[in-house]
Amino acid sequence: MATVAAYAASAAGSPLTRTTIERRQPGPRDITVEIRYTGICHSDIHQARGDWGKGLFPMVPGHEIAGIVTEVGAEVTRHAVGDRVGVGVIVNSCRQCHNCERGLEQYCAGGSVETYSDLDHYRGDEPTQGGYSTHIVVDEHFAHRIPEGLPLEQAAPLLCAGITTYSPLRRWNAGPGTRVAVLGMGGLGHLAVKIAHAMGAEVTVLSRSPDKRDDALRAGADHYRTTDDPGTFEALARAFDLVLCTVSAPLDVDAHLSLLDTDGTMVYLGIPEKPLSVGVFSLLPGRRTLAGSQIGGMAETARMLDFCARHGIGADVEVVPAERINEAFERVLAGDVRYRFVIDASTITPR
Amino acid sequence: MATVAAYAASAAGSPLTRTTIERRQPGPRDITVEIRYTGICHSDIHQARGDWGKGLFPMVPGHEIAGIVTEVGAEVTRHAVGDRVGVGVIVNSCRQCHNCERGLEQYCAGGSVETYSDLDHYRGDEPTQGGYSTHIVVDEHFAHRIPEGLPLEQAAPLLCAGITTYSPLRRWNAGPGTRVAVLGMGGLGHLAVKIAHAMGAEVTVLSRSPDKRDDALRAGADHYRTTDDPGTFEALARAFDLVLCTVSAPLDVDAHLSLLDTDGTMVYLGIPEKPLSVGVFSLLPGRRTLAGSQIGGMAETARMLDFCARHGIGADVEVVPAERINEAFERVLAGDVRYRFVIDASTITPR
Repeated sequence: MATVAAYAASAAGSPLTRTTIERRQPGPRDITVEIRYTGICHSDIHQARGDWGKGLFPMVPGHEIAGIVTEVGAEVTRHAVGDRVGVGVIVNSCRQCHNCERGLEQYCAGGSVETYSDLDHYRGDEPTQGGYSTHIVVDEHFAHRIPEGLPLEQAAPLLCAGITTYSPLRRWNAGPGTRVAVLGMGGLGHLAVKIAHAMGAEVTVLSRSPDKRDDALRAGADHYRTTDDPGTFEALARAFDLVLCTVSAPLDVDAHLSLLDTDGTMVYLGIPEKPLSVGVFSLLPGRRTLAGSQIGGMAETARMLDFCARHGIGADVEVVPAERINEAFERVLAGDVRYRFVIDASTITPR
Repeated sequence: MATVAAYAASAAGSPLTRTTIERRQPGPRDITVEIRYTGICHSDIHQARGDWGKGLFPMVPGHEIAGIVTEVGAEVTRHAVGDRVGVGVIVNSCRQCHNCERGLEQYCAGGSVETYSDLDHYRGDEPTQGGYSTHIVVDEHFAHRIPEGLPLEQAAPLLCAGITTYSPLRRWNAGPGTRVAVLGMGGLGHLAVKIAHAMGAEVTVLSRSPDKRDDALRAGADHYRTTDDPGTFEALARAFDLVLCTVSAPLDVDAHLSLLDTDGTMVYLGIPEKPLSVGVFSLLPGRRTLAGSQIGGMAETARMLDFCARHGIGADVEVVPAERINEAFERVLAGDVRYRFVIDASTITPR
């Protein structure tokens, strides 16, 4: 066991404060990662506030982790000391179910283990603690090489926001000749735009306000439309093959489904608080589908990182010291970040 | 113009009574079909009662039509006098949009024209009247050869109920190794079972009551489970790749989505009156999709008929004379038919 510095919420809704946590002694297949940067994902805030009603406290959030390998177990083959690596949303799965075998560990039939606020039932219910800390110990299978050329602070958010958008873009065949709408220009949305554009798709950002137009076009969007403009839905009827929904605010789902062409798909990437109201009359004409997608598998995450490095894609980040985590949370809730806060883990010092 | 005998609802909710209607003079690409049998589809009842609020009256329902060609226009190439043919849910489309060009006339961007209670906007808003009549005149593109060996009365329901189930089974790859659940054992459901079984899928019928177990197994179902049994949903969690929803009664959609394995799809084939309530938490785990599907294209309808003939698949029918249409409507609403009423069109005589 090693004692490391971290920022934790002591109870649901408490501000995050400096503390120490224990990391396990690395096993033969584990690596120890000295964390350099950790993204602040919107779900960190939900979890720390207990919005989803099942948080384990004290909780160290953080599942967008980038750092340097400082120690490897005897059987580790994929990473070496000094490697730049990332850790994302899950840190374990059964490795033998039909989903794990196909590289869909995130849908593990035995249950995947989240990077924080979870109990690793494959390790005797060891509690997990996330990346708002100086080090993490993780099975090598759940860590990914970060290619040269990707700055670590820009790479960290790819481990959640990047793969969450890359995976459905691949699953639903975004590429040359496809028309992709990205709903919401935020942490996920701005990466969805960059990735979809790099895949060759025609990309439209749909945003409530006109404020982010310049950023969207700079990120690679071909078009930018505001959804508060009443003419937008009529003008864009059947205009898309894929609509990626990166927002969790309540939506008129039927209106958004009407934007899909034949065989088009609208994919939810996050979980709105309330159930959706869906008219079947919105699905039938054009054989439309409504889907959900959760992060991506481990092999796909590695491919995503290579893809982003090849296309020079990183997150637009604002690096903050650890003592400003609570302020950053408030600013995320206010929509005041372009487009991801990243904690400089070197500022996480023991009390 | 020709005057032909028919049964019509004179206004929304009126009983169907004998009348006459005019059929257009066949054009160069039209055929005249002497109708032998017409299925009574649940939607006929909704339409005749004005449940969908846009009916055109007097209304001659009927879009499951089987008969004999008695006349062909000069440019007709696909049909000859004496051929056995079927006519289904649509009788026209633009023929030039991206959907029509791909054989998806049912999703025509210019709007497909329904067989009854519609105005053919490609023909100067000519009103359409359906198969509860002795003859129909139709463009040859919207009529399909009924292969030898398929009795006409069993073939008629294939033109709507058959293609409505065949098309999504093909679209979502039902076949050897796939697990298909058919929700509801009625007009659509019993054909879905036969077709999915013939495609090689493992078929489970999910029905509210145990009453139709024997029929389901006889039709080719491998398993039969009652949804009123509270243990069913837990026992069948993640058990299916495809759930075909043939019922329009309100459902617990989340409970049914929980039956889908990774990348599984639940497809609505009919339109429930109220919007669905869908928790995104039901879609995300396993990247599930919720979809809608409407009949099938013309080329696919022809393939469906060949497939059914090859596998000896026809509807289970109860043939009724025209004067019993209103009684049959009541019995359909009471669920008292196994599994399709078919009108003997020879009993439709002038007043």
